[in-house]
Amino acid sequence: MKFDFNYYNPTKIYFGRTALDNLSGELSGYGKTVLLMYGKGSIKKLGLYDKVVEILKNAGKTVVELSGIKSNPSYSQLLEGVRLVRENNVDLILAVGGGSVIDCAKGISVSAYCDEDPWKKYWVDFKDVDNRIVPVGSILTMAGTGSEMNGGSVITNEDEKLKNGRVFPPQVNPKFSILNPEYTFTVPAYQMSSGIFDTMSHLMEQYFSGDDDNTTDYILEGVMRSLIHSAGIAVKDSQNYEARSNIMWCATIGLNTVTGLSKEQDWEVHMIEHQLGAYTDCAHGAGLAAISVPYYKYIYKSGIDKFVRFSQNVWGINTDSMTREEAAEAGIEKLGEFIKELGLPSTLKELGATEDMLPLIARSTIPGGGYKKMNSDDILKVLKESY
Amino acid sequence: MKFDFNYYNPTKIYFGRTALDNLSGELSGYGKTVLLMYGKGSIKKLGLYDKVVEILKNAGKTVVELSGIKSNPSYSQLLEGVRLVRENNVDLILAVGGGSVIDCAKGISVSAYCDEDPWKKYWVDFKDVDNRIVPVGSILTMAGTGSEMNGGSVITNEDEKLKNGRVFPPQVNPKFSILNPEYTFTVPAYQMSSGIFDTMSHLMEQYFSGDDDNTTDYILEGVMRSLIHSAGIAVKDSQNYEARSNIMWCATIGLNTVTGLSKEQDWEVHMIEHQLGAYTDCAHGAGLAAISVPYYKYIYKSGIDKFVRFSQNVWGINTDSMTREEAAEAGIEKLGEFIKELGLPSTLKELGATEDMLPLIARSTIPGGGYKKMNSDDILKVLKESY
Repeated sequence: MKFDFNYYNPTKIYFGRTALDNLSGELSGYGKTVLLMYGKGSIKKLGLYDKVVEILKNAGKTVVELSGIKSNPSYSQLLEGVRLVRENNVDLILAVGGGSVIDCAKGISVSAYCDEDPWKKYWVDFKDVDNRIVPVGSILTMAGTGSEMNGGSVITNEDEKLKNGRVFPPQVNPKFSILNPEYTFTVPAYQMSSGIFDTMSHLMEQYFSGDDDNTTDYILEGVMRSLIHSAGIAVKDSQNYEARSNIMWCATIGLNTVTGLSKEQDWEVHMIEHQLGAYTDCAHGAGLAAISVPYYKYIYKSGIDKFVRFSQNVWGINTDSMTREEAAEAGIEKLGEFIKELGLPSTLKELGATEDMLPLIARSTIPGGGYKKMNSDDILKVLKESY
Repeated sequence: MKFDFNYYNPTKIYFGRTALDNLSGELSGYGKTVLLMYGKGSIKKLGLYDKVVEILKNAGKTVVELSGIKSNPSYSQLLEGVRLVRENNVDLILAVGGGSVIDCAKGISVSAYCDEDPWKKYWVDFKDVDNRIVPVGSILTMAGTGSEMNGGSVITNEDEKLKNGRVFPPQVNPKFSILNPEYTFTVPAYQMSSGIFDTMSHLMEQYFSGDDDNTTDYILEGVMRSLIHSAGIAVKDSQNYEARSNIMWCATIGLNTVTGLSKEQDWEVHMIEHQLGAYTDCAHGAGLAAISVPYYKYIYKSGIDKFVRFSQNVWGINTDSMTREEAAEAGIEKLGEFIKELGLPSTLKELGATEDMLPLIARSTIPGGGYKKMNSDDILKVLKESY
């Protein structure tokens, strides 16, 4: 480990079949008015909506609702939340759903009492949070983004065709998150796979960087192996609680900053996907899946030792008889097989992108990268390979 | 993952060469009077004492000192700390040293305003903490116990010849811990090795339990591999910052509860060593080293699948041509070699134990265990094999 780091993560996690039992205890720590946020109604089908409303009522809370949060939560929805928080003097924002709902809740949390234009201040200029933060709690119904235990908030500004993300300080993290893997049983297979690949991508974006000797890389290898193993079970047996539990916990710990400590990190696949998402509104993990193999094939020679290690330690490939290039490519091939096993698309075309979008996506993507610093031309080449 | 779990760890970690720069900012969050605790003066040789005292003075603090904390911190020292906290109305306990000093600080933290006999209430009857908790901060000078990011406190009652440990809730964790791997450069080789093996033992005590499929086991394997790798570098090159960094972080994350989530856990090696320590005052990690190989040889057949996995995934042994017993034993053999490489004793005799102590140690050890439930007779057999 060459770099210094700070670590602080004060989110309380309640994990398991009975995790919801902890909600009423947590509610007692906040004031009377709760903004209940959720997506397009899957929590009603699940019966979770009724349970949560009952717990809120029994706790004597006044409930304000903001529903219909999109899978790429929009800035206009965020502003609607800001209005509700201010008008009703909301004491706690309770996000029930996947990462989209929780990301939006954190966005509202920092924006409600922001005197400037929140989009510009927080998602364009990346300024520090210096205004009142409205506390957020979450009940997770879909694993993948890791939003339940970090300060991340990705918001899509539809007018500007920009999907920008940032990580707020730990004070913005959900104060508590309730994780019951059973809630993911009813998530459609495609969305579940998208979430699994989102997690895999988070782990790889952290892993593929740096040439130091770092404990974090060993931990990342462990989490990737567990995720791959459990994903293989979950795609065949969607009601397997153990596999769903592991996937959910891999997603949470895979982006709660522990797996990124002292790592430079890459994140270019996410940067590209954010712009892809702004143009196509595709599922985030599906977008990542379509980009990843072409991206890693494009950059691997700049960090070949790590890709060889990926083949050996994550995929268990015996590379003894291979050249270094073959050894590195073998792991990327395995990654491609994993994407197929998950039933995710491997081209942008399948996700609704058209060829004329590619230069627009390339030009609007924030350039960066880990082993290889990417510019717009590099990004366009990757997009064309992904198309 | 079959079990539910709660996770909450609010300790702030400042890690790296300049970590001490964060002390003054942290001090501003507490009142005027600080109890400065340390061991037998190594922090003075290191020049750390002077630096810390200067930072405390510049922050306008009144400093009360408690020094000479033993490597097995005694209950009488804890009571001395309780007296100092109450007489001086201490606002913050600042522990500078290894796990012994931090364990003792946490013990004082919960005992200072306890109306009952603290030993009986907290270390014998294991009652909940319902009295005022004095906040603790720590500056770590030796890696191993993990005390810097958990609620653990092991205290030796010399009158009763009992070394009892318990884990307090996260509210008792250090509020902040400052980890600079350079502080460990001057730790004598034997103590450093003892700390490394303490960490290894923590990881194994969590790993060797359960027959479920659990993400935590994959993370444990990663941390063990990193520790073994970096220990091999550090024993040859004691000034290698990268290796020392990894060892320090393995120790912290290896007992901050993340690596134990949803695990039954074993802890019988620690239970035995605690009593060994009460009789011989040996270095904790050295005691663990002497017991571990005989213990795991004694119990492995009750959890053979996990021991085979340990050989494969932690030590990288190709077990294809082995029987399951051979495969399991191969990993335990490697563990024995690791102990030798660290220069630690492999017998109790070398640690000052005498043969007549063995039945006394066996009888006073709390029986428990993971794959195999141990009774006093089992424990005595392990002790005789370790002798």
